[in-house]
Amino acid sequence: MAVIECIPNVSEGRRADVIERMAAAIRAVSGVRLLDHSSDPSHNRSVFTLAGDAAGVEAAVMALFERAVADIDLRTHKGEHPRMGAVDVVPFVPIDGVTMAECVALAKKVGAAVASRFNVPIYLYEDASDNAQRKNLEDIRRGEFEGLTTKMASAGWAPDFGPSAPHPSAGASVIGARMALIAYNINLASDRLDVAKKIAAAVRHSSGGYRFVKAAGFKLEDRGIVQVSMNLTNYEKTPIFRVFETVRREAARYGVSILESEIVGLIPSAALNAAAEFYLQIEGFKPDQVLEHKLRS
Amino acid sequence: MAVIECIPNVSEGRRADVIERMAAAIRAVSGVRLLDHSSDPSHNRSVFTLAGDAAGVEAAVMALFERAVADIDLRTHKGEHPRMGAVDVVPFVPIDGVTMAECVALAKKVGAAVASRFNVPIYLYEDASDNAQRKNLEDIRRGEFEGLTTKMASAGWAPDFGPSAPHPSAGASVIGARMALIAYNINLASDRLDVAKKIAAAVRHSSGGYRFVKAAGFKLEDRGIVQVSMNLTNYEKTPIFRVFETVRREAARYGVSILESEIVGLIPSAALNAAAEFYLQIEGFKPDQVLEHKLRS
Repeated sequence: MAVIECIPNVSEGRRADVIERMAAAIRAVSGVRLLDHSSDPSHNRSVFTLAGDAAGVEAAVMALFERAVADIDLRTHKGEHPRMGAVDVVPFVPIDGVTMAECVALAKKVGAAVASRFNVPIYLYEDASDNAQRKNLEDIRRGEFEGLTTKMASAGWAPDFGPSAPHPSAGASVIGARMALIAYNINLASDRLDVAKKIAAAVRHSSGGYRFVKAAGFKLEDRGIVQVSMNLTNYEKTPIFRVFETVRREAARYGVSILESEIVGLIPSAALNAAAEFYLQIEGFKPDQVLEHKLRS
Repeated sequence: MAVIECIPNVSEGRRADVIERMAAAIRAVSGVRLLDHSSDPSHNRSVFTLAGDAAGVEAAVMALFERAVADIDLRTHKGEHPRMGAVDVVPFVPIDGVTMAECVALAKKVGAAVASRFNVPIYLYEDASDNAQRKNLEDIRRGEFEGLTTKMASAGWAPDFGPSAPHPSAGASVIGARMALIAYNINLASDRLDVAKKIAAAVRHSSGGYRFVKAAGFKLEDRGIVQVSMNLTNYEKTPIFRVFETVRREAARYGVSILESEIVGLIPSAALNAAAEFYLQIEGFKPDQVLEHKLRS
């Protein structure tokens, strides 16, 4: 059975009744499970994490849009987090038994369905976008809801689906497909912030490091140690073990050891299995040798 | 949801129709999945691998006994593999969301039910047995079907459940609970059989090594290399990464490197995750951070 993860971000983080109605709408859909949801009142935003097969996540996203378009009005919405839609962004993520190409196709299908049913313009992003200028979420969302009418009328900003002007209350939504993101921190047995920052610079893409790593160095004041805090945006192409080993070697250059690492939130089992395969030098391993994987298939 | 693996070994490996009827009987049970089955004609024995919750595996084992007792007659059975029952041995293995104590309780419940319904005497083994002389399968099965009447009448060999003499055609069965067994081989970049044998002796329990390792050194003639072939009988107490690192260090003593390792057959995801946690020094990791695990729970 295919497993697709979907993490819709919605522009409502304060009204508990509205949030609960959206959660209930997702839970009522079969073929999908609501794994988690969290709301941030200062951002005035909620994040839902759901997983299921293609039909299940599609139906859940449609049910979520129905509630969000009815209950959220961006004309009166305030919050610290940038946003341009009632349902702001919807990524589909391949987890198991499904390809990125299938998630791209699903993003386009759902985008077209949302535009047609709710009259909300849709921008595709990340792997679902064929437009180099419209892959990055921040680029698409720049100007936010308040700037949408002007932006949509300008050259190069016609939406991928739906009307050429914003929905009056629900704005526009960004839908796409991307790899699972792993939030991964490595704590150093040191209080030297300069070392954490140098290592972060060494491994992150923006300063010459690995293609799918974002990283920054921080001090954990309460523990008297420093941390290299990372997002791994494609664990197949930039695997977790390679990043770990590079951090270890760069730290050794300064006489510093790794104290521990931590995975924040969810991780696909394939990312952990790849680390086991690497260190144990396992050849010819197939996913369905994992008993639980075979149980699901 | 709890996942229990169950691997019944049945004394029939030749008659395809009989084997298929047993497989069909298991498949007809809900709450359990038949993951695999294989038959060895020279052993005249079949191994079924199934998994499900307690009620599912219990019902599947009862259904299997019903077919096997009807279709198999040990008075005319010949094969290279030792056996004493139509259903020879039934281990229950905790995989996920279930304790060993629960698998022991399940083994006793199923043992009592089989004895009562089919009039087959049952011996408990491994973790399900409280009798130090009757934990090891080979000890219980010694003398095989042909020696059963005499053995059962001798001191210390009354069965745990059921009649004190063998079933005329189905003999007696061994039912118990044990940890998942991992078949794990490490290939050395060397043709020195003496090195493989020395390493096997270093890591295996019988000659002073790790408590839950069985090992032997072999030559892989066609590849011109040697192999340390192992069974890991408790991956929680003797984890795979510790065995791998010990083999690596012992090999280095002789100037030999590890070429690769291989996992033969199924492995519980917890055994792989433990290796990832060890090498990546992941602190505070919880199983339900694995997305697929959370999906199942």
